Amino acid sequence: MKLIRFGEFGSEKPGIQTSEGVNLDCSSFGEDWNEAFFAKDGLARLSAWLKTNQNQLKEIPAGSRIGSPISRPSKIICIGLNYRKHAEEAGMAVPEVPIIFMKATSSLCGPYDPIFIPRNSVKTDWEVELAVVIGKRAKYVKKENAYEYIAGYCLHNDVSERDFQLHHGGQWVKGKSADHFAPLGPTLVTKDEIPDPHNLRLWLKLNGKILQDSNTSDLIFDIPTLIEHLSQYMTLLPGDVISTGTPAGVGMGLKPNPRYLEYGDIVELGIEGLGISRQVALKDPEA
Amino acid sequence: MKLIRFGEFGSEKPGIQTSEGVNLDCSSFGEDWNEAFFAKDGLARLSAWLKTNQNQLKEIPAGSRIGSPISRPSKIICIGLNYRKHAEEAGMAVPEVPIIFMKATSSLCGPYDPIFIPRNSVKTDWEVELAVVIGKRAKYVKKENAYEYIAGYCLHNDVSERDFQLHHGGQWVKGKSADHFAPLGPTLVTKDEIPDPHNLRLWLKLNGKILQDSNTSDLIFDIPTLIEHLSQYMTLLPGDVISTGTPAGVGMGLKPNPRYLEYGDIVELGIEGLGISRQVALKDPEA
Repeated sequence: MKLIRFGEFGSEKPGIQTSEGVNLDCSSFGEDWNEAFFAKDGLARLSAWLKTNQNQLKEIPAGSRIGSPISRPSKIICIGLNYRKHAEEAGMAVPEVPIIFMKATSSLCGPYDPIFIPRNSVKTDWEVELAVVIGKRAKYVKKENAYEYIAGYCLHNDVSERDFQLHHGGQWVKGKSADHFAPLGPTLVTKDEIPDPHNLRLWLKLNGKILQDSNTSDLIFDIPTLIEHLSQYMTLLPGDVISTGTPAGVGMGLKPNPRYLEYGDIVELGIEGLGISRQVALKDPEA
Repeated sequence: MKLIRFGEFGSEKPGIQTSEGVNLDCSSFGEDWNEAFFAKDGLARLSAWLKTNQNQLKEIPAGSRIGSPISRPSKIICIGLNYRKHAEEAGMAVPEVPIIFMKATSSLCGPYDPIFIPRNSVKTDWEVELAVVIGKRAKYVKKENAYEYIAGYCLHNDVSERDFQLHHGGQWVKGKSADHFAPLGPTLVTKDEIPDPHNLRLWLKLNGKILQDSNTSDLIFDIPTLIEHLSQYMTLLPGDVISTGTPAGVGMGLKPNPRYLEYGDIVELGIEGLGISRQVALKDPEA
């Protein structure tokens, strides 16, 4: 299945995208795609429900905004420097264990929402990433069992303000957490539709020019390793997001000069099987 | 007002503590002390409601577990090294700007729950802290307006695994996020009852011996400065927690030898006006 959410920011409704690419309104299922949904075996219940109800579902209204495919999770955990060439372009050592940091969940937005450049930003940058959505509570998980805990996968732009992240005093969370810094989706694709998440092309274009182009086969730490590692340190809850890291080609790493987002820039990104998202960089209207 | 929550972990009910220290069941108010409650001016509505209903409220059942005084927030943001002597004992520079890091909200527990020592832990440590609870959405706040955004204050033990935090590869979140690493409460004390949050004694005892004993007047960055700083980088949501940092006297800093929690250790901590909490260190039953 491919799950979507649509409607106004903060009051999205649940839906699905059919294999023909048609977006259907699942409000009548009576649940949002959130922690409680995943915890109560929602994906299996939804799948069974669709068998008898999908024919009656309406298409979502034309022009509807598409939101994040999941409701705000308890946490968004990001993996730093998980592609070798990205570690090199960032001038940092290739890590020996996964580097993890948090992104405030208030940064979550839809896949076609603008990227808001925050007040005082000088270095807002892009990062195409494969995000894993957790399907059930995960604690002290062994890597050989890790797939049991996965609900599915999403496309994620881990938008990052490099000055805030690296030069405003300790800890990366400062540069990762502004509003609209986490465009997620368009869809949550359930794991049964992605037989090998470690062989997916992922790419990102700025104003039509390709800048990131890699494959998840290049991940330093694969998804089972990440779930084993993370679940040692904290309990992963249903609906939680693990963003697995970005490949080379971010603005910070461009030669001869770095390039950061300017008002009006258009960012498009995609991962094989997970769709394409597109954001325009705008001044934060509250800035 | 002093807000409490009571009952089984994960299904707590709301209550208040009267000025005589009696805990009353507020289930009939019909709301939990969560993001929606604070966002919809819940404190003012609750205060008005209590004027006509408090006499009818029942005492909570004897022996009830006391939970976190607020429901799981969108984020717990901690401030690192915000007391000079603690920075010195940790062997780190006194920061020039607030150092911030996240604690997974899944670590939240009640004030008398055990501290669970996680699997593979060798250095589980304590940190008494003044926590600020946000009352309304805060973004780009100026320090002179910061108190408008505060709901109240809580006692917090920012339990920390030093080996996970400092020696397991990057970013402190790894050592801050295990289950039961955030005992909060016993009460949320609304800001009207704490006229000066920068003049409160805070202390912590291990097995009856006082190890931390300081005053919030020693904070390097005061609360308005923290709210201004944080709200530049991310939007603070109603119910969010800012834990303002710990004074000297943590296990890591003890001379001549550090001392970390062992099974059966008893930690008691308190802040003037905010009550006392008590935790027993136990092996994580899932470890």
